[in-house]
Formats: sequence, structure tokens, C-alpha cells
Amino acid sequence: MKRLHHKLGLLACLALALAGCQGPDQVEEGQAQENSGQASQAEEQDVPALSINHYPAAIEDGHYKMSESRGLMARPSSEANLRNFEEGLYRIAEGQFSTEEYYFQEGQLITREMANQWLGAKTKDNPEGLNPEGSASDKREDYQPKYLNSILEYNFMKKDDEDNYQLEGVTIGLALNSEDTFSNGESQEKISIDKDQALEHGKQIAEEVVARIRKDKKYAKLPIQVALFYNGPTDSLAGGSYASEVVSVAGTAFSDWENYDTQHLVFGVDDAAAEEDNVAFARFTSEVEDFFPRLSGISGVGTYEEGRLSQIDIEINTQFDSYSELVALVQHTMNTANTIFRNNRGSISIRVEGPSGVRAIMERQAGENNFTYEMIS
Amino acid sequence: MKRLHHKLGLLACLALALAGCQGPDQVEEGQAQENSGQASQAEEQDVPALSINHYPAAIEDGHYKMSESRGLMARPSSEANLRNFEEGLYRIAEGQFSTEEYYFQEGQLITREMANQWLGAKTKDNPEGLNPEGSASDKREDYQPKYLNSILEYNFMKKDDEDNYQLEGVTIGLALNSEDTFSNGESQEKISIDKDQALEHGKQIAEEVVARIRKDKKYAKLPIQVALFYNGPTDSLAGGSYASEVVSVAGTAFSDWENYDTQHLVFGVDDAAAEEDNVAFARFTSEVEDFFPRLSGISGVGTYEEGRLSQIDIEINTQFDSYSELVALVQHTMNTANTIFRNNRGSISIRVEGPSGVRAIMERQAGENNFTYEMIS
Repeated sequence: MKRLHHKLGLLACLALALAGCQGPDQVEEGQAQENSGQASQAEEQDVPALSINHYPAAIEDGHYKMSESRGLMARPSSEANLRNFEEGLYRIAEGQFSTEEYYFQEGQLITREMANQWLGAKTKDNPEGLNPEGSASDKREDYQPKYLNSILEYNFMKKDDEDNYQLEGVTIGLALNSEDTFSNGESQEKISIDKDQALEHGKQIAEEVVARIRKDKKYAKLPIQVALFYNGPTDSLAGGSYASEVVSVAGTAFSDWENYDTQHLVFGVDDAAAEEDNVAFARFTSEVEDFFPRLSGISGVGTYEEGRLSQIDIEINTQFDSYSELVALVQHTMNTANTIFRNNRGSISIRVEGPSGVRAIMERQAGENNFTYEMIS
Repeated sequence: MKRLHHKLGLLACLALALAGCQGPDQVEEGQAQENSGQASQAEEQDVPALSINHYPAAIEDGHYKMSESRGLMARPSSEANLRNFEEGLYRIAEGQFSTEEYYFQEGQLITREMANQWLGAKTKDNPEGLNPEGSASDKREDYQPKYLNSILEYNFMKKDDEDNYQLEGVTIGLALNSEDTFSNGESQEKISIDKDQALEHGKQIAEEVVARIRKDKKYAKLPIQVALFYNGPTDSLAGGSYASEVVSVAGTAFSDWENYDTQHLVFGVDDAAAEEDNVAFARFTSEVEDFFPRLSGISGVGTYEEGRLSQIDIEINTQFDSYSELVALVQHTMNTANTIFRNNRGSISIRVEGPSGVRAIMERQAGENNFTYEMIS
């Protein structure tokens, strides 16, 4: 399931001109003419409705700088959770720090050592722990679950007059657990954490994290955005989603928490928001499989915003690898999807996975009537 | 290497409206209004310069019909050869049978039994064999290499007045070996077959294949196109290419053979047509790797038409899977490619392969200045 986890889910489809990836002051002398030529050409191109902008990378000393703390986890998670956690934070940051104004750097404030301490239980040996003391207990009656599972930090930079990058903003994602496991060698028990409970603890942790960063006077007035991610069950294809965000412009001042109602649900497995969506997906599956009996499976994830189906992600697995059969499958799949999801106004992304990887990607943007597709040799 | 073979190489990039996939008479009653609405919308969209059309599939009895003979081989080949053989034949067929006028069906005339016989040596037991009698010999002095390695057949259909599909054209690809192995248990020897020699035998085989199909009077006046593919060495990333094609409109009449001069060459490995292309690719590789030291390898294949570099296919392999690092890699790769391949007027396709599959695809169409890219979650 590991591979499938990773491949399914949100497909970030982009078709942006290169010019869009360059920072405002990245044009080097001597290239100015060509570059401005490119820019005007780019402006003439139609940019797809749902295109997503990306930050230019802040590069110092010619290398891309990694974050030390990325990837540390209090307990194992799923690839679907990790993917939604990372890509979702990128999207959330864009709401606060414009891709037109800021350069991106992976988080440098929270070191590996800090993250290791913070993800642990708060004990005498680990006073900086952000998980409850009880999460280190081996007695079931004293045990409290680990709420905080991982921390992801993004830095947003601007260039000063001397062309040096200055840190101008931080976005921090906190992944909260929906389940934890108590285990003391004798017995093992799964403990579920409901969303309200997770968010309540998450909000306290967020304030504490901001306070710790602000201990360094340099960062007293640094805008810090924090977003809370509620992990999905580790065995789910769909993965969790962001639930809430807050901004601290300076000091201990916080904006109100802004809540999202986003859910990723596996069709036919999770209780979808609307039974008709399960039915439509089942009909789609049976019509495609009837046509191509040698397919080895179709799975689908629906993304619901405020209870409304906003995105469908479908993965079709096949053992065959004939180019002409693949072309026919892509055509039939798009026809079937257009018929069955005709009144669906959300976006649809369908990928075909062959024995050696992705063979085709089909996409219909929100509000559009037609798919575009790409075949991958 | 198997996986790499498959992934590298020609990337068929398409962004066509669905309407383009429908046959002229596929619009069903009751859907007419929506469909014509889609068509006019599709016409308004910009179709990329290098977009490739596809045939609608001819579907009988609700199932996609497979070819029995596809995939049979006289000796093992590489994935790169198979991919170029299949996709190349599709492109060649389009030159003879328009995607606007014909429906596609996998080849039904050459059965599995026929293909098995034809690919064997011509012996008393196998009088239909199209490979030399000597290719069955276990004496080195009598041995002759197997020229014909595999056969691929495509059928092109039109609908008659009663809405039944009628076969109106056939395209056959013959894959010819560039090497064979003599082996008799005691000794083993690799025998190379030069291109002229392979084509000379291939042309005789092509005429024989057409004659055999025409033995059935039904097919006396069926247009048959035959294309000869010269396999690349099995250990090469690049794969072989089509070398020659011919059309027999009816009976034993053949057009003149039309020859192609196409070569796929691995940069830094094969002797490229121009040493400057090797140098440019090496510079590209070192600039990208310098920036991202954790990459695990970059390989590139150049396609040369008439000695001119018409397409560059690059694969970047990476162990990392951070979304933000991937975004930075894609940006830096496109910038570097635009700088180094600035004066290259051919098309460029670059893909990033992560631990669990394709993570990003970048493409610059022939004659364009900008890349488009797509990130795959």
C-alpha cells in the first residue's frame, strides 16, 4: 500500500511559464533583453485557471539549504499524511506571504535538536517537550496520547539593499495525531484522538512554539503563521488535512484562529459526505473495468470543502503496457468521467499507473467541461 | 536498468480537448447539444504546437480487442526498443491513415500462431519462417543471424452505412535486430548486424508479409503500410528507431521505400553526432548537481533527425522527496536548461524520478523559449 499512498491524492497540475518562477530582481545583466522577451511572451500565453504559483528559492552559497527538523516524527505516519501536510502548508503560506514578493527557504530556526525535544513528552529530562508527560508513561491509567506528531517550518525572505536575504516571515505546520498507541510490552492499545481535542491541544502548542521563537529578540517582530494539520489514520489512502491557522504579527499578539472544513475521503471505504458520490464513483469504476477487463484496480479520493465535493482524485492500476491500449483507455476514461461527473463542478484528476510507473495523467479543471491529458512514455 | 530504460526517452506530451478524441460520428443523440458546445469551446483553446492526435478506438461488443501477436520476440529486446517500436509505428501510421478519418484497432490479421511461425527459422518443420534457415544451426560456420525480431500490426477501420466497422488499412512494423547471439552450449558469440544488411533483409521480409496477407482475396486491395525498425543494442538507454517505410496500395504494387535518418544517442556514452551536444549536456549535469548535491544521477538521450539534434530527453534521479526541495529543483533545472540549451531549437523534455516514481515533468516545445512543468504528487 505504501506506493499507492504516495501516488494517489492531490495532483498539483501546473503549466506556468518559466518567467513566473523568477524573483522580481533575478534578471541578470546581459540577459535582460532575452528575459524581458520571455516575459512578454509568457504574458501572452493562457495560464490555466487553477494554476499554482511557486516561490523562487532563496539560494545562498550556491546550494539549496535543507531544513534540519523536517521529517522527524513522534510516531510513524502515512505517505498520504506527509504529502498533504507538506503541500498543504505551501498553499497556506501563499495566503500570507505572496509568491511575488518573497523567496522561499526551508525552515532554519527550529534545529533538529529542538524538534527532537519538542516532539517528546515534557519530563524532567526533557523540559522542552510539547507532548504531555503522560505520553511517556507505561501505566495505562496515567497514559496520555501524543498530540503533536511533527513540525514543518518554511522561511520567507526578501533581499535587502546589499542583495542579502533577510528573513521576513515564517510559516509553521504542526501535524496533530488522530490516534496514538499505548504500549508497555505487556499490552498494546490504540487510542483515538478526536479532532476538537487535537485542535485544542494544538492551539496551546502553537502559542508556545511562537513564544519560544520570539525568545530570540531578533524575531520579536517577525510575522509567524501557524497552521494545524489533523493526521488521517495511517492505513487510509486519503490522508489528513489542515484544520486551522493563525498569524502572530509580532510579540504575543495573535489573530483569531481561522478554521477550515476540509476532508479527504476514500470512495466506497469512508463514509462520504454524500452517498451519491460513492454511487457515482462505483458506476465510473464498473464502466471503465467492463471495457478493460484486465485492469487491476481503481481507487478514488474525494476532497470535501465545507461538505462540498471540490476535487476527485482517481488512480487506475493496470498490468498492461501497450501504447495503443493505453491511448484507448485514456479516451474511454475521459468519456466515462465526463458523462458520469457531468454536473460535478469541482476538479478531477485521474492517473493511470502501469507496471513501471505513471503512464497517463488526465485532468479536468474546476468548472471546465473538457479533460486535458498527458501520456508518459 | 530496466526501469530507467522504460522511463527515459520520448515523452508524448499532449493537451488536447476531449472532443479531439471522438470519431466524427460518435456524437450520440440527446448529447448533441452538450457535445457541440464542447467542441466549439475546444476550438477556442490554444493547442500546443507539438500536440499529437490520437485515433478513436474501434470498439466492438463493448470491449477493447487485443492483438494476439503483439509482444512475441525472436530474442529478448530492451524496453527502450519496445517503446520506440510501438509509439513510432503509431506516428508513422498517422502519415498514411488520418486520425480524423479512421478508427484504430490492434492488429487482428496476424494471429499468434502465424507470428510464432514467421519469427522462427525457415526449416522443414517451419516452412513459414521468415528468418534464415541458418539461424537454427548449432554450427558456427553455418549460422546466420535472426534478422526479424518482432511484428506489430495496427488496423484502421471506417464505419459502413450500417454502422459496422470495416477494415480499410493496415500498418505493420517489423523490428530488425542489430545483433544476434550464436550459442550451441559449447560456445557463445555475439554477431552484429549492420543497418544496411538488416534493411536489405527487412525489405524482402516486408514484401513476403504483404504477399501472405493478400493470399486472402478479401485483402487484395487493402492498403498496407510496412515500416522497418532497427533495434538498438539491448543494453542501451536510447533504443532503436524506424529506418524505412513503404506502402502497398493493392496487389503486389509497392511505393518506393522512404528512408528516415533518425538516431537516439545517449549523451556521454554514444558517439553523438556533434561533440558540442555532449559538452552541453555535461555542463547541464554539473550545474544541476552542484546545486543539488543529493541527486543520484542524470542521464540524457538526444534524438537526431538527418544528423540534427531534434529532441533532448533528460532524466534526473533523486532520493529526496520534499515538496519544497522538488519545487526548487524544477525551477533551477528549467533555468539551467534555458541557459545552456538557449540556441537549441528542438524540443526538450526533462523528468524528475523520486524514490516512488515520477515527481515532475518539464517540457519545452520545439522553437519555444519557455518550459511548462507539471508536478506529480
